[in-house]
Amino acid sequence: MRVPPGLRAADFAEAIKQFEAAVGKDWVFTSDEDVDLYRDAYSPLWHEAEEPIPSAAVAPDGVEQVQAVLQVANRYKIPLWTISTGRNLGYGGSAPLLSGSVVLDLKRMNRVLEVNDKNHYALVEPGVSYFDLYKYIHERGLKVWIDPPDPGWGSPVGNSLERGGGYTPMRDHYDNHCGMEVVLANGEIVRTGMGALPGAKTWQQYKYGFGPYIDGIFSQSNLGVVTKLGIWLLPEPEAYRTGTVMVSKHDDLLKLVEVFAYLMNSGIVQATTLVTSPLWFSRPNPELDALRFNGEVAGLEDYAKRHNIPYWSVNLPLYGPARVIEAQWEFAKDKFSAAIPGVTFADGPSYRFPLSSEQVANLSDTVPFGIPSLSIFSIMGPKGQGHLGFSPIIPMTGEAVLESQKVFTQVYRDLGSPTGSAASFPVFSFFARAFVNIYLFPVVHDVETNRKTREIYRRLIKESAARGWGEYRTHTTFMNDIAETYSFNNHALLRLHETMKDALDPNGILSPGKNGVWPKTMRKERA
Amino acid sequence: MRVPPGLRAADFAEAIKQFEAAVGKDWVFTSDEDVDLYRDAYSPLWHEAEEPIPSAAVAPDGVEQVQAVLQVANRYKIPLWTISTGRNLGYGGSAPLLSGSVVLDLKRMNRVLEVNDKNHYALVEPGVSYFDLYKYIHERGLKVWIDPPDPGWGSPVGNSLERGGGYTPMRDHYDNHCGMEVVLANGEIVRTGMGALPGAKTWQQYKYGFGPYIDGIFSQSNLGVVTKLGIWLLPEPEAYRTGTVMVSKHDDLLKLVEVFAYLMNSGIVQATTLVTSPLWFSRPNPELDALRFNGEVAGLEDYAKRHNIPYWSVNLPLYGPARVIEAQWEFAKDKFSAAIPGVTFADGPSYRFPLSSEQVANLSDTVPFGIPSLSIFSIMGPKGQGHLGFSPIIPMTGEAVLESQKVFTQVYRDLGSPTGSAASFPVFSFFARAFVNIYLFPVVHDVETNRKTREIYRRLIKESAARGWGEYRTHTTFMNDIAETYSFNNHALLRLHETMKDALDPNGILSPGKNGVWPKTMRKERA
Repeated sequence: MRVPPGLRAADFAEAIKQFEAAVGKDWVFTSDEDVDLYRDAYSPLWHEAEEPIPSAAVAPDGVEQVQAVLQVANRYKIPLWTISTGRNLGYGGSAPLLSGSVVLDLKRMNRVLEVNDKNHYALVEPGVSYFDLYKYIHERGLKVWIDPPDPGWGSPVGNSLERGGGYTPMRDHYDNHCGMEVVLANGEIVRTGMGALPGAKTWQQYKYGFGPYIDGIFSQSNLGVVTKLGIWLLPEPEAYRTGTVMVSKHDDLLKLVEVFAYLMNSGIVQATTLVTSPLWFSRPNPELDALRFNGEVAGLEDYAKRHNIPYWSVNLPLYGPARVIEAQWEFAKDKFSAAIPGVTFADGPSYRFPLSSEQVANLSDTVPFGIPSLSIFSIMGPKGQGHLGFSPIIPMTGEAVLESQKVFTQVYRDLGSPTGSAASFPVFSFFARAFVNIYLFPVVHDVETNRKTREIYRRLIKESAARGWGEYRTHTTFMNDIAETYSFNNHALLRLHETMKDALDPNGILSPGKNGVWPKTMRKERA
Repeated sequence: MRVPPGLRAADFAEAIKQFEAAVGKDWVFTSDEDVDLYRDAYSPLWHEAEEPIPSAAVAPDGVEQVQAVLQVANRYKIPLWTISTGRNLGYGGSAPLLSGSVVLDLKRMNRVLEVNDKNHYALVEPGVSYFDLYKYIHERGLKVWIDPPDPGWGSPVGNSLERGGGYTPMRDHYDNHCGMEVVLANGEIVRTGMGALPGAKTWQQYKYGFGPYIDGIFSQSNLGVVTKLGIWLLPEPEAYRTGTVMVSKHDDLLKLVEVFAYLMNSGIVQATTLVTSPLWFSRPNPELDALRFNGEVAGLEDYAKRHNIPYWSVNLPLYGPARVIEAQWEFAKDKFSAAIPGVTFADGPSYRFPLSSEQVANLSDTVPFGIPSLSIFSIMGPKGQGHLGFSPIIPMTGEAVLESQKVFTQVYRDLGSPTGSAASFPVFSFFARAFVNIYLFPVVHDVETNRKTREIYRRLIKESAARGWGEYRTHTTFMNDIAETYSFNNHALLRLHETMKDALDPNGILSPGKNGVWPKTMRKERA
């Protein structure tokens, strides 16, 4: 049996017995075979000495059992690594950051506690997946949509807490949570927002409650175990339509993004989309490769013209009453036309809801329609390959898009990566007023390749930070590196996180090291 | 000279000298005449022994001076009460909760640091008023709107931190902040969100940063002194239009609010409005008074019919492209018509922006158009009278509106208040998915009247909490009472606030007692 760092095997064996008493023998996992299921199958540290390996896993079935587990962990100073469904792929999956941690697996707490289709919210436990919640709503014919991220097997609780994104107007998942129940490290159950009022009628309808609004400290955090979360749902819209805006010159990007930001910030476009260069997604060919490699703007513009490909394009997804979204699209076209000579437009598909089963079956991607799927895996590269995302937040300006692509392409070149593999990736609007730049790296079962990937990744973090761009989320492997870049005033914010960590979790049992926040006992080691 | 509680006069005199060294002699106020200006002119405790009176005031001009003031306060354990512009009328104004506190007045820190009209945000200091910010933008002809609350002399920083509301689609002021600079009690300067990254390019564009998102702990709080705040602005919309929806039956309210919630939660209506009964705002007359007093639904419906007054109405304010808001209004009318037989509609005024000076001069209320004013004071009752708001959050359902009006009217009656003075006040949509019920009380220069008001107020808090409705904000006089109602699990949330308070402000210098959170040293006293 593996043992957590600093623990004697006999004590750990005793602790395991107490975990078993708390949650039942069947729900404590200690055999290598069982525990290996919690490893990250595509860890960038795969099969290296540094790959973090859990020592055991424990799966409570309710809040009282969570409390009991925390009591044992405090008694023996056992580091726990909390997961909801453990599907946080690309960010560490169900594996801890600190080797030897016990995984606190909340998958059994999978109850949909309420769905309200008049005030449009749900109250769920952490083990509920997007599929579970969708099924619950669908079976009852409720007229509300969930907002799944790309793969639907994750949990709305986990994804909201990690501040993930989706595609409908409810795209910002942390922002669309409302109210939490949290078990603190000391076992106390806290309800936030209006939930602090016994018998509250608006726990899932008004976020802030009275006094300091603390929900945020439990996001991307190791300060508590969230056991219930309120989530705002989208009332089923009447219709959807989309249209594509296309421009032919390199510099048209500046106005393209400026008008786009106006539409986003005005609430005219409310959903996730991407600004991209179709040139980069054309099938590879030697002429285009050479132009791209040399960054020949005139040549690329000419190539685009000859092949009738836009230089840049952006798709506008619109949800709402049919006549409203029609008017929004007409207005958007006028705005772009006034700003960019030669801009062209293409109508995309449009739908009325609810969709028939046949319509659903014919969708190339169901996710933007609130229907969770796993189809993303079919386009994520060859089988047997994981991925890793490098995702800095950049300003919603064309200048920033151009600069970031230049900077990151140079990193790839300096480090000898194949031509064009990074340049001109799309930028996404998962969040209200900034872009997320997403660079995907393959993670493979080859130590050397992964080492190279880590080297590029770390270099990207540095180059990015040097330009004032920070990452919004990352794989456990890089959490310290990224926390290191948020260093204003000698790491004042990190030190504040640490002060709170020490006050709320003095034994440092909850997810040590998560996003760079270490408990007092382990802080020196880290430095 | 008044002296803070527990301090010796000689020590306080010494501390005052040090404050003077920190901010300049002209900016430390100790004479009764000067300090009385910081009292709440319409305190519900006016001229009673319990009225909190500050001992002095100190006004730093920058972050370094704030740090110096905090150093002195820590040295002598002097309670500070932080204000921005001190215009928090109805909530205590510039007066502290704890008598003898020194007011930390940030009015001199009144710099507009940046306004960006491409990404639509501002970065401001706490002493900047809505008027200041409007003037800055207006003078430069920038195409962005601010969102002022009713009186415009308050500060965007203060109002956002207190989680106040406005009228445009940016109505939820806390929600529309992005990034903070905070001086902690220990003098450390922390920047939150992307501000923690040196040279950050998206401090005002992406809220969360990396790791725990802590901004909320500085709202309605005494954990730090916020010295800079990012605020999202609305791009100047193309147009505005409004329309009124009217129904004639008492029970029509249920469907009226249901459709309203659908429109709000779908993002079709994004601004603040109110659901009200025009019957209650008719000029008083004996017949109507009697019907109202007895709650005779049939009689009231009949009266409404005879006098051609709607029983209930709601106004829909729509901002955006002219053709979009036209389509939104048409869709809303269809939705209401399908749900409520006999519903009628009236078109309200519509505008194209920018408005001419003449149009602005003719507006009855400029606030919904992003132009701060003080006109609210002309409709707030006789001169020489302050007010106090009782403002519970209730569900966005017709049932909750009816129940709350019944419950609160009964309180008024039980306590012998004049007929109808509380019943059927409008409910507001300052926040996304719940109503705020606002009951205004006059506060006068008469001790007996104010005592009665406090009695009614406290009874309302209790009756409200018993039904699961909690207040979102209150006057200093009632902060403990309301904190008391958020008592789930033996006040687990309050105890968490206290743990954080002790960790971040061990000497308890910052705004003791704010929203029920007391420092360790004073906690026993309070109990």
